[in-house]
Amino acid sequence: MNYVRNTWYVAGWAQDFAVDKPVGITLLGEPVVIWRGADNVLTALEDRCVHRLAPLSLGRCEGARLRCMYHGLLYDRQGAVTEIPGQDVIPPHAKVKTYPVCERHSWVWVWMGDQAACDTKLIPPAVGYDDPNYILGHGQMDYAAEARLINDNLLDFSHLSYVHINSFGANEEWARQRPKITPLENGVRVERWLQDLSGSTVRVSYSKPGERYSRYDFLLPGVLLMTGGAFPEGTAERLGGAAPDLELAAGAVTFTSQAVTPLTEKTSRYFFSWGPHVKHGDAALRDTLMGIAGKAFAEDRTMIEAQQRVIDMTPAPRIMPTSADRAITLFNQLIARRIREESNLAQAKPATGWGT
Amino acid sequence: MNYVRNTWYVAGWAQDFAVDKPVGITLLGEPVVIWRGADNVLTALEDRCVHRLAPLSLGRCEGARLRCMYHGLLYDRQGAVTEIPGQDVIPPHAKVKTYPVCERHSWVWVWMGDQAACDTKLIPPAVGYDDPNYILGHGQMDYAAEARLINDNLLDFSHLSYVHINSFGANEEWARQRPKITPLENGVRVERWLQDLSGSTVRVSYSKPGERYSRYDFLLPGVLLMTGGAFPEGTAERLGGAAPDLELAAGAVTFTSQAVTPLTEKTSRYFFSWGPHVKHGDAALRDTLMGIAGKAFAEDRTMIEAQQRVIDMTPAPRIMPTSADRAITLFNQLIARRIREESNLAQAKPATGWGT
Amino acid sequence: MNYVRNTWYVAGWAQDFAVDKPVGITLLGEPVVIWRGADNVLTALEDRCVHRLAPLSLGRCEGARLRCMYHGLLYDRQGAVTEIPGQDVIPPHAKVKTYPVCERHSWVWVWMGDQAACDTKLIPPAVGYDDPNYILGHGQMDYAAEARLINDNLLDFSHLSYVHINSFGANEEWARQRPKITPLENGVRVERWLQDLSGSTVRVSYSKPGERYSRYDFLLPGVLLMTGGAFPEGTAERLGGAAPDLELAAGAVTFTSQAVTPLTEKTSRYFFSWGPHVKHGDAALRDTLMGIAGKAFAEDRTMIEAQQRVIDMTPAPRIMPTSADRAITLFNQLIARRIREESNLAQAKPATGWGT
Repeated sequence: MNYVRNTWYVAGWAQDFAVDKPVGITLLGEPVVIWRGADNVLTALEDRCVHRLAPLSLGRCEGARLRCMYHGLLYDRQGAVTEIPGQDVIPPHAKVKTYPVCERHSWVWVWMGDQAACDTKLIPPAVGYDDPNYILGHGQMDYAAEARLINDNLLDFSHLSYVHINSFGANEEWARQRPKITPLENGVRVERWLQDLSGSTVRVSYSKPGERYSRYDFLLPGVLLMTGGAFPEGTAERLGGAAPDLELAAGAVTFTSQAVTPLTEKTSRYFFSWGPHVKHGDAALRDTLMGIAGKAFAEDRTMIEAQQRVIDMTPAPRIMPTSADRAITLFNQLIARRIREESNLAQAKPATGWGT
Repeated sequence: MNYVRNTWYVAGWAQDFAVDKPVGITLLGEPVVIWRGADNVLTALEDRCVHRLAPLSLGRCEGARLRCMYHGLLYDRQGAVTEIPGQDVIPPHAKVKTYPVCERHSWVWVWMGDQAACDTKLIPPAVGYDDPNYILGHGQMDYAAEARLINDNLLDFSHLSYVHINSFGANEEWARQRPKITPLENGVRVERWLQDLSGSTVRVSYSKPGERYSRYDFLLPGVLLMTGGAFPEGTAERLGGAAPDLELAAGAVTFTSQAVTPLTEKTSRYFFSWGPHVKHGDAALRDTLMGIAGKAFAEDRTMIEAQQRVIDMTPAPRIMPTSADRAITLFNQLIARRIREESNLAQAKPATGWGT
Repeated sequence: MNYVRNTWYVAGWAQDFAVDKPVGITLLGEPVVIWRGADNVLTALEDRCVHRLAPLSLGRCEGARLRCMYHGLLYDRQGAVTEIPGQDVIPPHAKVKTYPVCERHSWVWVWMGDQAACDTKLIPPAVGYDDPNYILGHGQMDYAAEARLINDNLLDFSHLSYVHINSFGANEEWARQRPKITPLENGVRVERWLQDLSGSTVRVSYSKPGERYSRYDFLLPGVLLMTGGAFPEGTAERLGGAAPDLELAAGAVTFTSQAVTPLTEKTSRYFFSWGPHVKHGDAALRDTLMGIAGKAFAEDRTMIEAQQRVIDMTPAPRIMPTSADRAITLFNQLIARRIREESNLAQAKPATGWGT
């Protein structure tokens, strides 16, 4: 599967990993089991017993260990078999792969790449539902589509004017205006001022005259972090179109974290949160926003799964980028570059090995 | 897919194409969107936006145009993009394929082949539900089977004696008797006189002693047009087995139009109408006949889908034709000849191009 | 499909083959129709009409014959077409394959291999529900997994300690103890004495102090025949661990016959019976045991289908046998040897043909 590996993928919401309840998930086509010990330590292993390939996610937690519940092999947190019932000798190669795993911003993240390159500093600065500054709802949904198509969707909000008329109530300004695009080391930043608030979701909580600033970073491997707020009329002009201080927003400051995780080549899981800043809303507003989001993300899925089906029946699919695709192009170039670098590194490794 | 292309395929019932409601259908493995404008003009385009391959059938009609509702590209009836929101220049290659489309006999027909060869005179002379001479019901059903198997079924009515005992009540005369088969330029004609009316559907409306004449044409690409009626005993003998004048029928004159459309390699859509001539029945008889047809066509589907599953698990499937297969053989030879001709034409084209 | 062919496969429970009701089943990827005549004779034919490959299992029994209900071809018990409606001449090659078929021990068995090698003596000595010595319940279930994985499961009962905690209540003795394994000509014998009866299913009918002897043969192609019983404490020691005389058991003597039949490469059907010896229980105990078995076999299926899914997403699946796998290894070696022998025989055949 053509995805960056040296990066953190969201495997689930932290609260969905209960103590001693192993969770199985397929990440980039690899079966992974994740479990939380009574000591709150998370472990992620290859979800495939060395014995006969049964999934360890059907297993039983025993203290810091996980027992395969087919024939009883017991694994420690390093993936090593420590017990084979009725057998004294344990082969040294009786070991499954481990994955670095980490809980942060209410998400459980798994590092799918080279463990030497693993670094928690690379975890995107999402906002979790435990953040005291925001009142966030959260959810997730599965897609019968490859993750790349969902990333493309999130990198070009011109689709709001068409896909989300009946949910976000987005007008054509989203499609006609080109946002400011800034390449980041690990992604792309997208910023815009919107003058026309008619129909906008901002209107749910902000009824005065005004305009809206919106900003999101879309970061490797597929994480969207978005905020924004309403400002008095003329603010954009006064700032010369530059970014405002959100502390000074007149209203409607919200945050949404969204993550796209490739399960298999053509299935994905999409995680999302959304809600107001504590100064700009309450739990009732959060629930209203989540209701809108639920409708909107179902609209996205309908379109993207249909797009996937058309692609699947197209012998040699080719796209025709428009000027609205700039962030997509930048992000996909970044992905291609990272994959190329990882591939070069992987090829270089044996050579490096000569001297050791 | 091994189908004739220079021919009209039924894409649906006319009444199912409401104004400004695009309809997506896969024809011969190609995604096609069809829509009816407020001016009643039908348009059929490749159902695949040039931008990112979203289906235009999820789009919005805007006068004579169709807007892709993913990122807003607007198409005219010639398949050309006429607007890209937020972008001034439209690349000249921003164009999807168009298909000739035509409404006739209550069906919407799409020409899948060379547009230079397109000719509405090639549309089979079906009878629509708007024909004042008949009182027709209509329906459709989808098959998990390739269209060729359904065509084969419709070309050999000897199956009536076995598949349709519990619906059409056909006796063994259908299987034991060989009908008169006449090759046509675009198909095959099948005619027969049946002496034994016991159990026959004719008995629903005709209770006197008699015999039955039945005739159908099976035309490219897979359209069955069938009529017939009941006659006094001795008519067939008096006519020397020739076709009678249906104007003189004693009763039970009906018409059925049926069409088989290949969606993908192994799925098909089957359209059918049936009902009495106005002189031989009413809406109540039509409903009775449609009830029988519904049961009978479900019997066909059960058999044909099972046949498809057997074929699919057969490494090198071979058939053993019987004398009942003559119409099938003629029709399949016609199809093979047409496909060969189309292939020769396609190869010849570059040569023609030398002189221009 | 990589299975032994010169062997009897269970195609179903005898009572499920009613007179004149053809049954279709896919065995080793081949469509087979089996029917019982009014004279109680079973016939098994290739389930694929020579005409157009319709399944004969949708056909109609007519005395000793079976009529294809698509176009009426009639087959005799030797697979020969004896009638083509409306056609006088029947081609000599109008014949489908026949399979030896046999009812024994309440099962219908089909021989999938060389008919010259067919021998009913090779049918495993199962115990049918008509056996007067036992009061047996029976059932079956389908698996989305290859038969080999189910065979593996049945050859290593160490899984009882983990998979069946909530059904058979098996304790860890099953996993920690290594049974006595004896190679048989057509399979493997597995015997063991269990000292710890706590939680054991034996406790359902035997409440005194004691120990348990258990023995099963697992025979080609995948048939498990198991019995055992409870004995007073010290019996195993007194016998030096040898097999006891089950006639002398203190209680809990039961029998279970189980059979695994490969349908396609990755689907299987699993047949099972279980119940007490007439001297050790009644219909109520049988029902209790069948309730437990129903729960337990569902546990197996959950594990094995999950194992199949993991295998399917593994590029080059490899197992790591443990000492608990000895019976599996012996049985799989036997299968490999038989397949090799069959292959050699098949290659030798043309050479044999030279002289004839």
